[in-house]
Amino acid sequence: MSETVAAVVMTGPGSPLERRRFAAPRARPGGAILEMVATEVCGTDVHLHHGRLSGVPYPIIPGHVNCGRVLETGGPLTDVEGRAITPGALVTFFDVFGTCGNCWHCLVAKAATRCPHRRVYGITTSAEDGLLGGWAERIEVLPGVRVLPLPDAIGAEAFMGGGCGLPTGFHAVERAGIALGDTVVVQGSGPVGLNAAIFAQLAGALSVFVVGAPSARLDAARKLGADEVLDITSATTREERVRWVRDRTSGRGADVVIEASGNPAAVPEGLEMLRDAGRYVVVGQYTDAGDATLNPHRHINRRHATILGCWGYEFTHLHRALQLMARHNARFRWRDLITREYKLSEASQALADMERLAVVKAVIRP
Amino acid sequence: MSETVAAVVMTGPGSPLERRRFAAPRARPGGAILEMVATEVCGTDVHLHHGRLSGVPYPIIPGHVNCGRVLETGGPLTDVEGRAITPGALVTFFDVFGTCGNCWHCLVAKAATRCPHRRVYGITTSAEDGLLGGWAERIEVLPGVRVLPLPDAIGAEAFMGGGCGLPTGFHAVERAGIALGDTVVVQGSGPVGLNAAIFAQLAGALSVFVVGAPSARLDAARKLGADEVLDITSATTREERVRWVRDRTSGRGADVVIEASGNPAAVPEGLEMLRDAGRYVVVGQYTDAGDATLNPHRHINRRHATILGCWGYEFTHLHRALQLMARHNARFRWRDLITREYKLSEASQALADMERLAVVKAVIRP
Amino acid sequence: MSETVAAVVMTGPGSPLERRRFAAPRARPGGAILEMVATEVCGTDVHLHHGRLSGVPYPIIPGHVNCGRVLETGGPLTDVEGRAITPGALVTFFDVFGTCGNCWHCLVAKAATRCPHRRVYGITTSAEDGLLGGWAERIEVLPGVRVLPLPDAIGAEAFMGGGCGLPTGFHAVERAGIALGDTVVVQGSGPVGLNAAIFAQLAGALSVFVVGAPSARLDAARKLGADEVLDITSATTREERVRWVRDRTSGRGADVVIEASGNPAAVPEGLEMLRDAGRYVVVGQYTDAGDATLNPHRHINRRHATILGCWGYEFTHLHRALQLMARHNARFRWRDLITREYKLSEASQALADMERLAVVKAVIRP
Amino acid sequence: MSETVAAVVMTGPGSPLERRRFAAPRARPGGAILEMVATEVCGTDVHLHHGRLSGVPYPIIPGHVNCGRVLETGGPLTDVEGRAITPGALVTFFDVFGTCGNCWHCLVAKAATRCPHRRVYGITTSAEDGLLGGWAERIEVLPGVRVLPLPDAIGAEAFMGGGCGLPTGFHAVERAGIALGDTVVVQGSGPVGLNAAIFAQLAGALSVFVVGAPSARLDAARKLGADEVLDITSATTREERVRWVRDRTSGRGADVVIEASGNPAAVPEGLEMLRDAGRYVVVGQYTDAGDATLNPHRHINRRHATILGCWGYEFTHLHRALQLMARHNARFRWRDLITREYKLSEASQALADMERLAVVKAVIRP
Repeated sequence: MSETVAAVVMTGPGSPLERRRFAAPRARPGGAILEMVATEVCGTDVHLHHGRLSGVPYPIIPGHVNCGRVLETGGPLTDVEGRAITPGALVTFFDVFGTCGNCWHCLVAKAATRCPHRRVYGITTSAEDGLLGGWAERIEVLPGVRVLPLPDAIGAEAFMGGGCGLPTGFHAVERAGIALGDTVVVQGSGPVGLNAAIFAQLAGALSVFVVGAPSARLDAARKLGADEVLDITSATTREERVRWVRDRTSGRGADVVIEASGNPAAVPEGLEMLRDAGRYVVVGQYTDAGDATLNPHRHINRRHATILGCWGYEFTHLHRALQLMARHNARFRWRDLITREYKLSEASQALADMERLAVVKAVIRP
Repeated sequence: MSETVAAVVMTGPGSPLERRRFAAPRARPGGAILEMVATEVCGTDVHLHHGRLSGVPYPIIPGHVNCGRVLETGGPLTDVEGRAITPGALVTFFDVFGTCGNCWHCLVAKAATRCPHRRVYGITTSAEDGLLGGWAERIEVLPGVRVLPLPDAIGAEAFMGGGCGLPTGFHAVERAGIALGDTVVVQGSGPVGLNAAIFAQLAGALSVFVVGAPSARLDAARKLGADEVLDITSATTREERVRWVRDRTSGRGADVVIEASGNPAAVPEGLEMLRDAGRYVVVGQYTDAGDATLNPHRHINRRHATILGCWGYEFTHLHRALQLMARHNARFRWRDLITREYKLSEASQALADMERLAVVKAVIRP
Repeated sequence: MSETVAAVVMTGPGSPLERRRFAAPRARPGGAILEMVATEVCGTDVHLHHGRLSGVPYPIIPGHVNCGRVLETGGPLTDVEGRAITPGALVTFFDVFGTCGNCWHCLVAKAATRCPHRRVYGITTSAEDGLLGGWAERIEVLPGVRVLPLPDAIGAEAFMGGGCGLPTGFHAVERAGIALGDTVVVQGSGPVGLNAAIFAQLAGALSVFVVGAPSARLDAARKLGADEVLDITSATTREERVRWVRDRTSGRGADVVIEASGNPAAVPEGLEMLRDAGRYVVVGQYTDAGDATLNPHRHINRRHATILGCWGYEFTHLHRALQLMARHNARFRWRDLITREYKLSEASQALADMERLAVVKAVIRP
Repeated sequence: MSETVAAVVMTGPGSPLERRRFAAPRARPGGAILEMVATEVCGTDVHLHHGRLSGVPYPIIPGHVNCGRVLETGGPLTDVEGRAITPGALVTFFDVFGTCGNCWHCLVAKAATRCPHRRVYGITTSAEDGLLGGWAERIEVLPGVRVLPLPDAIGAEAFMGGGCGLPTGFHAVERAGIALGDTVVVQGSGPVGLNAAIFAQLAGALSVFVVGAPSARLDAARKLGADEVLDITSATTREERVRWVRDRTSGRGADVVIEASGNPAAVPEGLEMLRDAGRYVVVGQYTDAGDATLNPHRHINRRHATILGCWGYEFTHLHRALQLMARHNARFRWRDLITREYKLSEASQALADMERLAVVKAVIRP
């Protein structure tokens, strides 16, 4: 083994990324070391670089959803089915860890995504604590972190084509409670929106409409099965976009609208796209992008709306999303969502491309 | 029978109420005529007088929730249990009618409160169509309108002490999905809020806190079992009120918050009183009182909030609320919510008193 | 128009079918007359002929799910979207009617399929009341019966390939509450089981296994997407069949099992195929085929099972099933489920073929 | 501290109980030692003595739900709210431990009560592993076991009056999904049934009927608020008992029936007490008491029944049940359910009294 390992470090908001070398880590008991195969650059990484998340322990190594090959394990390691995970296996892991299982949120409310002890690789892990982000040649899987072997039908490309949008979109669709035959609108055509569009189809939607930009992302939406897409760069007013949805839903609005845009103004707009007694999921507001103004009478009360905030995801979402990906990989071709692959040394470029939405999905192959 | 019947007519927004006489109606086949025993003046009547609801066919006879004695029926009339309703019986009726049972909302979405054909006594019925509001000596029960005899344990006073707040508060609590042991905050101490506080207790809440004004209404809240009340005339800032709730909920916020205030600004405030992954019901925004500004990231997405608009009520809510009132009448003493009874000739005074919140519940006894 | 219309009448349990002529009916106000295009012979018709249903007003004209062309309407007729239905349109109709909308089941419990006034074409309608079953040249659509135009993408063949199994299977899958990624077992490979297998896939199942017979039906199951099928004529013991399921579900049993077999013994067997905390739908026991013995400790309590009886279907199920059929007709090819088409004069043959399971789906084209 | 501690050991099915002495345990890091204040003898202990549970590692010290005073802790110990638990505190603890948090049941299905690693004090803990049952002078709280301080309003007597029936009855009522205004029948008047009757009232039931024996338990049911009770020693036929329920439910049957009797024949009987589309919870079949015969057509399918097995309970149930007990202790007087208190030396007598149902609740005060 080489004695040091390269990683890209985000030292603070606005600062240039730095390439640093770390001592090669060894697996702790119950943990593992992975040789990184692929990691992603997602919208959250852009937000991290803009300093838009609170409680981030800079310097950090970004990269929360990852794919690697097991180099060594700290003793026997098994997946959720009890099958051994051994060196050489191509795996991912659930990037959320530290959920305590002991607090009121975990035990009484069963709202584990809101456990105050919850930590996330590449976001709330400091580079001073080791290789706990994917923008690196290797990554340390801490004891207790749950490893998932990639199913045979999925390569690293397909998995990273889904990326963190895969379980996030899955969770949003689960939260939406889609009924067989529902009409679904997705606001936003980034990775979360595209995966939501996929899982909405798998969950029994009759039609899925995607409202977003730029056109490359809308093309991707169309390819993966969206019935119709609306480009917000040409339909520039709220009225126009709401009418477009109503024209396609007997004038009533959609049964389900999923917000995956990150724009606060999308919330009142999406509520106007919703039918009375419909369900509205807010999954795109992962960082504080400002306030929105809405009318409680029209948008919520009289509409008898159900509005569902959707934070993070749980192991069950990642596990099931992965199994469905293995099954439907030929139909949805997640790997085609990757616009460009970057070397580790090109991380800054990848970040810049993501920032200006020049790519659907940016993957780094260290 | 007298040949004419007196009623109070609201001829239009802002106009003085008028006393008019109508020809004494006869029951149509499947309908009935009631001699009015009691009707109410509620916040909606104030809104009607301010012209704040759309689609109101002025002139109207206000009074949507009513209690009367059967004068005559147009043939056999039965309640939901199939028991005969005969002259002399003390009854109320479900004020919503005309729900078509044939449209997409009724048949496919099963969202009957949003049926476009739905009409409501005293609100969307014109005085030109007859005695279809309670501010009158008699009222006509149209064919198809569902009549409910008052259970023996309930007199007209107790029922009108609940009034339209009874099924509305019931519906809000049902929509909240209160779990055994939940902590509940009710924003607003008007009739809807007070009934929500009652049904929250009946649904298994561990504690119920009421935030409102004026003090007479908060006293009522305390008497009917609220654990603690907060007077918004003394706790005048949002921060103060939110802290008051958090101090009583281990700093986390309440499991359930029910908005019954009618103030748009209550919505973001209430969301700050809510624990992560809690449920927030919006039932107080029956008229358009303006916009509210909220932060989709903090208030909805990161909070993993469930926000539930709650419009109208269905027969099942009124039926079950009535049965529970009969059972728990001694415990909650609904009749004590009536601050003052008015004669039909005092309707203007009752409306003025309700407008300035001088009364908890204003009842007219024609 | 001819002055009389031919129909096939089932005069009583066990009696030969009779061909009779009826006066050509005229549409009542709000109703319609259809020229029959296709009707079905289903398992219920066999049960009707065996006298296994109670409350059947023999003589009856069987045929509850039907497809016809509008001959005349009794005034304007619209579908649930408010679009006019005019002579010449190819339509079906919701075979359940008479649900009162007034009783405790309709209003309080919202359990309309259990309304005591509910009637069903071809089952609880007497031939003495007219052409109220599909085994006829024409059929009368009574006022209040809800007519659904077939979507353009569906011909009479596809619709009848689904037949009554279409909304029944849909309802069973809705009741199962299938989560994205669930593994589903369907017991029974008749029309209800096959449609349940289709809708389970559409609702997000990861895998669908069908246990049934004979082989022609299992071939159909495989063609419409079942992952694997088990022939009960070769796997003849309960232990063998349960092990087959457990071998495919990590030894745990399936997340969801749907009973669509009609055999009482399938119930305890299916519960042994179910994982702990799984959901079990009983939709196949439409007639009383006898008792079953099960162990409440092992099968229900310790298993933390959810067992869901599923009776009838509602308009919403038929409406949404039809829309999904229009969308996925190319994928599932419902019309291929029709093994053979019969003339009206061959009804006895069709009934005999269905009785010995010689056909998957038997359709009569009058 | 004394150097040895007395405990009562059940060496195997049918063998006499033995009093043995154990070395006084010391708290492990993260654990604690309690001086026992009260423990219970419940129906499960009788079943343990009859050898009716599988996988029991005899010899065991029975007593799964316990109340003790903290003698020492192995380092800082906190409750779910983060408050310190220190020596002298009166506490109970969640008797279930070892739930792995890593397996498919824990992570994917979120069915933690079915985790294969789950263990229970006094049932699946061997006396060879130490003082892991309550029939002893002291008990060891293992690291990871969750300790709950008794709220001030609850003494050891009230808590043990609830005993294991408290969280079990709570869980059954939660599983039943009681709606405001539901009519509930409880089959069985033992501790689980009585607690289910309490929580059904707290959850919003309109009426609660208890069917059971002997009369002392039915008296207890009446005192804690059951509307009416039926003694099965006088109503000796199923028909009679079913009719008794139907006479009190407009002939329809109850909205919810909770089986807490332990008798397999109660299951089909209870289903006949249930209204169409009602919910039936099976919580009383904790051991295999044999098979039951039911009719899938009448009891499940046509009834559109929802049948819910209910296994064990989770921390959230115990926590919330305890809070509600603290609130409603004066109303329900749980301590009055204790018929008799025994010394540790009288454990055999307590077991014999419980076996012949001579007591409602038997408590041992070591």
